[in-house]
Amino acid sequence: MDINQANQTAAERMMEARPILKGVATARDVIPGMQDNLLMHAGPPIEWDRMSGPMRGAVIGALIFEGLAKDEAAAVAMVEAGEVEFDPCHHHESVGPMAGVTSASMKVYVLENETHGNSAYSNLNEGYGKVLRYGAYSQEVIDKLKWMNDVMGPILADALEKSEGIDIRALLSESLHMGDEGHNRNKAGSILYTAKLAPLIAKVAKDQNDEAEILQFLGDNALSVLNPVMAACKAMADAAHGVEGSTMVTTMARNGTDFGIRVSGLDGEWFTAPVEQPDGLYFPGFTSEDASGDIGDSTITETTGIGAYAMATAPAIVQFISGSPQDALNATLEMYEITVAEHKYFTIPNLEFRGTPTGTDIRKVVELGIPPRINTGIAHKDAGVGQVGAGLVRPPMKIFEEAVIAYAKKYNL
Amino acid sequence: MDINQANQTAAERMMEARPILKGVATARDVIPGMQDNLLMHAGPPIEWDRMSGPMRGAVIGALIFEGLAKDEAAAVAMVEAGEVEFDPCHHHESVGPMAGVTSASMKVYVLENETHGNSAYSNLNEGYGKVLRYGAYSQEVIDKLKWMNDVMGPILADALEKSEGIDIRALLSESLHMGDEGHNRNKAGSILYTAKLAPLIAKVAKDQNDEAEILQFLGDNALSVLNPVMAACKAMADAAHGVEGSTMVTTMARNGTDFGIRVSGLDGEWFTAPVEQPDGLYFPGFTSEDASGDIGDSTITETTGIGAYAMATAPAIVQFISGSPQDALNATLEMYEITVAEHKYFTIPNLEFRGTPTGTDIRKVVELGIPPRINTGIAHKDAGVGQVGAGLVRPPMKIFEEAVIAYAKKYNL
Repeated sequence: MDINQANQTAAERMMEARPILKGVATARDVIPGMQDNLLMHAGPPIEWDRMSGPMRGAVIGALIFEGLAKDEAAAVAMVEAGEVEFDPCHHHESVGPMAGVTSASMKVYVLENETHGNSAYSNLNEGYGKVLRYGAYSQEVIDKLKWMNDVMGPILADALEKSEGIDIRALLSESLHMGDEGHNRNKAGSILYTAKLAPLIAKVAKDQNDEAEILQFLGDNALSVLNPVMAACKAMADAAHGVEGSTMVTTMARNGTDFGIRVSGLDGEWFTAPVEQPDGLYFPGFTSEDASGDIGDSTITETTGIGAYAMATAPAIVQFISGSPQDALNATLEMYEITVAEHKYFTIPNLEFRGTPTGTDIRKVVELGIPPRINTGIAHKDAGVGQVGAGLVRPPMKIFEEAVIAYAKKYNL
Repeated sequence: MDINQANQTAAERMMEARPILKGVATARDVIPGMQDNLLMHAGPPIEWDRMSGPMRGAVIGALIFEGLAKDEAAAVAMVEAGEVEFDPCHHHESVGPMAGVTSASMKVYVLENETHGNSAYSNLNEGYGKVLRYGAYSQEVIDKLKWMNDVMGPILADALEKSEGIDIRALLSESLHMGDEGHNRNKAGSILYTAKLAPLIAKVAKDQNDEAEILQFLGDNALSVLNPVMAACKAMADAAHGVEGSTMVTTMARNGTDFGIRVSGLDGEWFTAPVEQPDGLYFPGFTSEDASGDIGDSTITETTGIGAYAMATAPAIVQFISGSPQDALNATLEMYEITVAEHKYFTIPNLEFRGTPTGTDIRKVVELGIPPRINTGIAHKDAGVGQVGAGLVRPPMKIFEEAVIAYAKKYNL
């Protein structure tokens, strides 16, 4: 068996996937296996008793949002009575940033990979401040979710229905030439996204104030496009999964407790270990003492060759996550060591338009002792608080070692 | 007299100028000295018989647009009968890209420098293809100008009136961290601008189709923000003009025939010489044989520390104007040699957030033999055609030598 050839096939599928944002719909109507008592969450599988603070907070908030629980106590009682099912977003063609908790009534982005035909989904981005994805669940959090679901969501749905869809891979190609790395810095992508949506929204919105509010919300939120980008990356990663013999990583995801990876040639098996603590810059009033462990499906960006892997495109990001522009360049250069391809569509002007390092090879990670690099937001460790900073983290090396062992076993090496 | 001190004062005034886009109005209502038979133009003063092809084309188009002439022949007859006056935009607190031809009925951006109180104006950007500023004047050019004036202009005016204005210096600080250099690459700035305007436009537009068309026009045009940016730079440059003893350049402008500069400590005197030919990349079907000489007031960007001076922020621009990302970096490094300050608000992530080289010193240009660098569009040499490419150019060294001699004479050195 030619492992390198298998990896080239997997990388080629990842790069040639062309995810188009086709619409916005209600999760229960489109996401495979969605049920009214199911909460999807970020990262590998986890049960309530091992969930981190921000994940618990998001679970409580989602149950209140759904009207299944009237408050925190009722939500916790429901969960403890076994009335709520949990399952990773990743098991449902979905991804969600930070806690990633997505419930049946929530509006989600619908993406289709025009090359290979698979779909992917992600919830809508809530912006900054007190937000469910960081584990906050106060009334203002629920109110904003309801506005997003009842006012913004339907208008986005109508607007996208009038369009030919938005090519998110093309948008990323462009935003990577505009100082974004596509994970923690999506400033350019988010305004490109807003500018593309604006004329579509203008055509369908019936109320000028709603319209103005939506355009303001999308334009002011430098993460507006993160969720469609993540779903696009999920579509790319899924297209690359299941290539017989490939040692390429197709999932990296964290639930705040465990970091999990999956490998293209190893079916759906998760390799997990306790998450590390991100290292970065904290908002005023917070320190590393306040930080939750690493959390979120947003590592799907690094999985597909952007995020920290493309940090050389985003020197200005160091103002947000610490370090120097040279560190940003070095991060990308290091990732070439552990990847199998240079991206055909994501290029780095500063490196003479070299393609971003794409497709992590578990063999190289273990042989060289270089785990992937990840840019991330940092959540407060307690339920109900929210974001406290942003920084850098790596997955535990152990999960790559275990994946290599499992690979050797499966393929009798 | 302490020349360095005078230059520091001039540079400080240039950098501390804070131009706010306050509105859109009709030129004759706001521009000082505007008259119905006056056409403002780019660059230093010039009369019809010495005008370049694109400048003549824009003059013809403006007279047709104003309804003063019904066609090219009538326009030329009017001009030759002495019925049209010409004067540089720069003499009227204004600037215009390429031909820069601006007539009394045209809508213009109104900017106010909140620090020093001076105003500046620029016409609206027409986008790509057949456009007046490149000397095209066919019916489609006139029709687009009329749509801009009659449909888009009034809605932009209403939208801006509802706002607190748009801080263009802040927008540039942001866009320079997003791969723009602010002159030939304004992709990020233009979508930032569109995203800021979108909710304002949503509130005032009465017709959804007009609104959608305007948002599409602004969002698709990667030069939407060029004209407000140029007017902002004009406000900065004017604030730095007239500092006794300063050898800092406060105007660089070309009319397609002559390149002209003015110097802070030398009153309003122009130093001019024939323009050079830009060197760059041509659109399919065109070569350097087709190119007009260097043209436009857009060099006001280089005058105030952006454009080619900030090219290190915009490595992706080389795909449009030729060269490598290293050339872009070198362009900026070279400009530090001939400038008096590093910008306080315009910084370059790739150079550890060093300020852009700001304020050209005529002494340094002459002593070191390094003329300024300029990024520019390239117009066809004939009236009525349009843009044929984009590239790089320098002003003739002679005008800096003459300015130094005039300076020595005025100050008895």
